[in-house]
Amino acid sequence: MTEKWLVGVDLGGTTTKLAFINLYGEIIEKWEITTDTSKEGKNIVTNIAKSIDEQLEFLGHPKGGVLGVGMGAPGPVNLETGIIYGAVNLGWKEEYPLQNIMEAETSLPVIIDNDANCAALGEMWKGAGNEAKDLVCVTLGTGVGGGIITNGSIVHGKSGAAGEIGHITSVPNGGFKCNCGKTGCLETVASATGIVRIAAQAIQSSNRETELAAIFKRNNKVSAKDIFDLARKHDQDALRVIEEVAFHLGLALANLANTLNPNSIIIGGGVSKAGNLLLDRVRMNFLKFAFPRVAKSTELGLATLGNDAGVIGAAWLVKNKLSL
Amino acid sequence: MTEKWLVGVDLGGTTTKLAFINLYGEIIEKWEITTDTSKEGKNIVTNIAKSIDEQLEFLGHPKGGVLGVGMGAPGPVNLETGIIYGAVNLGWKEEYPLQNIMEAETSLPVIIDNDANCAALGEMWKGAGNEAKDLVCVTLGTGVGGGIITNGSIVHGKSGAAGEIGHITSVPNGGFKCNCGKTGCLETVASATGIVRIAAQAIQSSNRETELAAIFKRNNKVSAKDIFDLARKHDQDALRVIEEVAFHLGLALANLANTLNPNSIIIGGGVSKAGNLLLDRVRMNFLKFAFPRVAKSTELGLATLGNDAGVIGAAWLVKNKLSL
Repeated sequence: MTEKWLVGVDLGGTTTKLAFINLYGEIIEKWEITTDTSKEGKNIVTNIAKSIDEQLEFLGHPKGGVLGVGMGAPGPVNLETGIIYGAVNLGWKEEYPLQNIMEAETSLPVIIDNDANCAALGEMWKGAGNEAKDLVCVTLGTGVGGGIITNGSIVHGKSGAAGEIGHITSVPNGGFKCNCGKTGCLETVASATGIVRIAAQAIQSSNRETELAAIFKRNNKVSAKDIFDLARKHDQDALRVIEEVAFHLGLALANLANTLNPNSIIIGGGVSKAGNLLLDRVRMNFLKFAFPRVAKSTELGLATLGNDAGVIGAAWLVKNKLSL
Repeated sequence: MTEKWLVGVDLGGTTTKLAFINLYGEIIEKWEITTDTSKEGKNIVTNIAKSIDEQLEFLGHPKGGVLGVGMGAPGPVNLETGIIYGAVNLGWKEEYPLQNIMEAETSLPVIIDNDANCAALGEMWKGAGNEAKDLVCVTLGTGVGGGIITNGSIVHGKSGAAGEIGHITSVPNGGFKCNCGKTGCLETVASATGIVRIAAQAIQSSNRETELAAIFKRNNKVSAKDIFDLARKHDQDALRVIEEVAFHLGLALANLANTLNPNSIIIGGGVSKAGNLLLDRVRMNFLKFAFPRVAKSTELGLATLGNDAGVIGAAWLVKNKLSL
């Protein structure tokens, strides 16, 4: 008998990740294609549908052996209508009926959710979440994203904006300007960009010839990686930058935990590759700011699925929808 | 045919509220009894069971016409075992098997949850929540309590500590000491006690002969009501105290909304009786600190059920459990 496959799609602004995944959450085959955002993004869905068919043919797997497509998309999604909002960097209009178009192009059942939510579902199913029913996933990348699972389901909220952890206000007064229109968002101090911003501020306000300042002078910029590399060599200025980032992250995550008391808060994304250098300091602040009963029960940990979380979680959407 | 009734119980440290409620959430009869915390609280459950039977007899309603008892209790509850933790002010041990004891004494099915969660369920069912699936309820009383509903269900979290909104850290450094062991909890600045504490600080730090200081000198204390009364007369010092409270509440509630994007955040409890004097200022801060998409969709409002929210929500637990 042909094994039943799920298709997981993780749609990004530059590349789209795809995978065939079985009902046990194992990846059979994964690949990537370029996201073609030209012509108001009208080729995006067609390219995905074509790529799935080509790959099935290449692997000799009949289309009838595919149960459906789950898809993580970069924007808030209306689950009932399958419309994605404000994915303007893909070239799409403010409201784009992604699910309908995907179903027409693939001739398969399609389920859409936000990409950060899919990553959270992936970690719940096969990653660090360990099938816990209450889980918060935070992605520290260029921005800060989040997905929240309570009682085994993603929280979407009234208009799909639940889980916007990056836009928790961390600096109520005098914070950096955020793309969202507010100031002082967690994203402005805890993303890769935010870390660099804090470092730049430290360089400007210091009179000493710090290592950080030297790197800045040499390269005309510093990167988050530079800062973590310096900190690993016990550079005090770099460590202070990380302390500040860890304070904001620890406080925000503790308040999330005070609110939701999840089994765990899982930290992923590029910045999380700093590992314990960052995590230990975040945890110290987390334990300081968490309600004692919460501090005892909610764990902080690193994501384990890396880039695969999105496609695995997207596939889970199909499995869940079809009650398999 | 005898109408089927639900029993809602709201167990408090001083009084216990009880009500018979029909399947439409209408209160048939409500009454209160004193909570007898003597002898390690061993009379509490017996008194409740007796009172239900007496009231049924008085109303001429057969016990067979009662479907079950829902109960809100002041502490974290394990839903699977029906054990309540740390309800020490009732005289009970750290772990008290409340559901089992209640079922034995009443000979009825019993469902227990935390009291703040019951209030939230009550507001969802028959109050300001308007049957919304995503709802946050905040109770501003002597302390600050909370109940969180996502996808139509209460969030309990790993150890029943979800919804501890009062222990969100609002003042990370140099905050007041909280009963929970931390410092700077929302409860220390936004409860009735917290408001008085902020006022006391304002009195101490001012050189002027303020109205607030005069009241303090006269009565040897100020109450939250004094402060709101003064503010209504446009007293600038009292208004500044309320501005500070509103800043902390607005920020904490905005961050809750940035996380969960609920349909609404409903504010109840004694302090909420200050009405728009407080609410307008909380809303101003809320709108400043909420992610734009959240600010547009999540509403702030006042609870409408008052003291009945707890018994109505407790009755809902039974209705929900029996899928009625």
